[in-house]
Amino acid sequence: MTTDLEELAVRLREFVRSRDWEQFHTPKNLAMALSGEAGELLAEFQWLTPAESQNLDSPTLARVRAELGDVTLYLIRLADVLGVDLVEAAHAKLDENARRYDPERYRGSARKAPPLPS
Amino acid sequence: MTTDLEELAVRLREFVRSRDWEQFHTPKNLAMALSGEAGELLAEFQWLTPAESQNLDSPTLARVRAELGDVTLYLIRLADVLGVDLVEAAHAKLDENARRYDPERYRGSARKAPPLPS
Amino acid sequence: MTTDLEELAVRLREFVRSRDWEQFHTPKNLAMALSGEAGELLAEFQWLTPAESQNLDSPTLARVRAELGDVTLYLIRLADVLGVDLVEAAHAKLDENARRYDPERYRGSARKAPPLPS
Amino acid sequence: MTTDLEELAVRLREFVRSRDWEQFHTPKNLAMALSGEAGELLAEFQWLTPAESQNLDSPTLARVRAELGDVTLYLIRLADVLGVDLVEAAHAKLDENARRYDPERYRGSARKAPPLPS
Repeated sequence: MTTDLEELAVRLREFVRSRDWEQFHTPKNLAMALSGEAGELLAEFQWLTPAESQNLDSPTLARVRAELGDVTLYLIRLADVLGVDLVEAAHAKLDENARRYDPERYRGSARKAPPLPS
Repeated sequence: MTTDLEELAVRLREFVRSRDWEQFHTPKNLAMALSGEAGELLAEFQWLTPAESQNLDSPTLARVRAELGDVTLYLIRLADVLGVDLVEAAHAKLDENARRYDPERYRGSARKAPPLPS
Repeated sequence: MTTDLEELAVRLREFVRSRDWEQFHTPKNLAMALSGEAGELLAEFQWLTPAESQNLDSPTLARVRAELGDVTLYLIRLADVLGVDLVEAAHAKLDENARRYDPERYRGSARKAPPLPS
Repeated sequence: MTTDLEELAVRLREFVRSRDWEQFHTPKNLAMALSGEAGELLAEFQWLTPAESQNLDSPTLARVRAELGDVTLYLIRLADVLGVDLVEAAHAKLDENARRYDPERYRGSARKAPPLPS
């Protein structure tokens, strides 16, 4: 894991340990928390047009930034508990997508296939 | 953003640009994709006991790792499009949580307050 | 609960009982499954424009209908396990929203407040 | 659609129309709102053990009931906008699952296949 992500993972470990919260941080529970926070992020955008979502006003951007922080914390914590390197996992998935979605064939098309799919 | 995250953000920019997919990558759509991938990650854990989620078999761990890769990619892409530094946003949120959840008062308790809450 | 919903709840009880799956259907697990299915529904719309989402092609509508079926099944099952009447809960929430969002004050505005919010 | 669900759908149509909110209620936006509310429901269960989730205290059950109300409202509204009959869609999905998951073969096993899967 990168230095910055590792630093966050270490800080989280200490945060959790000092409150005796390891008992709550099973992978199952952390996956729930991550998904819940992703839902809060989603809610910030639900009534905006696509164009409005590209020009957030200042209070909305501040809330979105805080939700992105929450998602990042739970993602790092879940990966740490599972022993997964997020940067390696992301590169591996992007390698796979690069093979799967030929640039010429999928140019400008989200119909044939979703970008960056699962 | 950290060097490793910045490298992923740059790689994603090129991946998207070479397929002419910028048109699909509005913050609204990316927040949807992130939440959808978090849902796929969640589904891997839904029938497992908490203890089972701490001892994943090898095929499940491989799928979980791939889903973590997807979530990471969309999170980085969304932050990049919005101009948000994920590492800074995560530290800011953890600072806030450290102030909000006194270690003594919240020791061992997820009832009084959820760990790492929104 | 309405006759049709009650009929589905009873059919689900028998489906689950005959497979000895009650052990998996805790409220926690069912809430995860419901959220995961909502994420699959979300994924069907993520790259569509708002206008496209109003004019689904036939294969997409068939997939969306199947996902709506999944969400409905888990919602009914979760409510049944918890002993909650969904129709009463929905009316109670709509009563609350009707009081909270004055028609004149909130006319045409999702900015001041989200429609049907939590 | 059943009488009770139809009654809720009609009540929602009037609620939305009287506030001029039809413009926000595209299927894309409603799928986002549904997923966001499912995430709020999920968050109620994230730190509970499976056993605790089966014995909710009174304030938690009240919040869960309110979230179930929200999910139900958005599900009915989305189906109404799309012209999908939820009860028919649910029965069709349950028919499919009954064929797919032989009671003998899948007895007591969420490993071989998740119950009520997508």
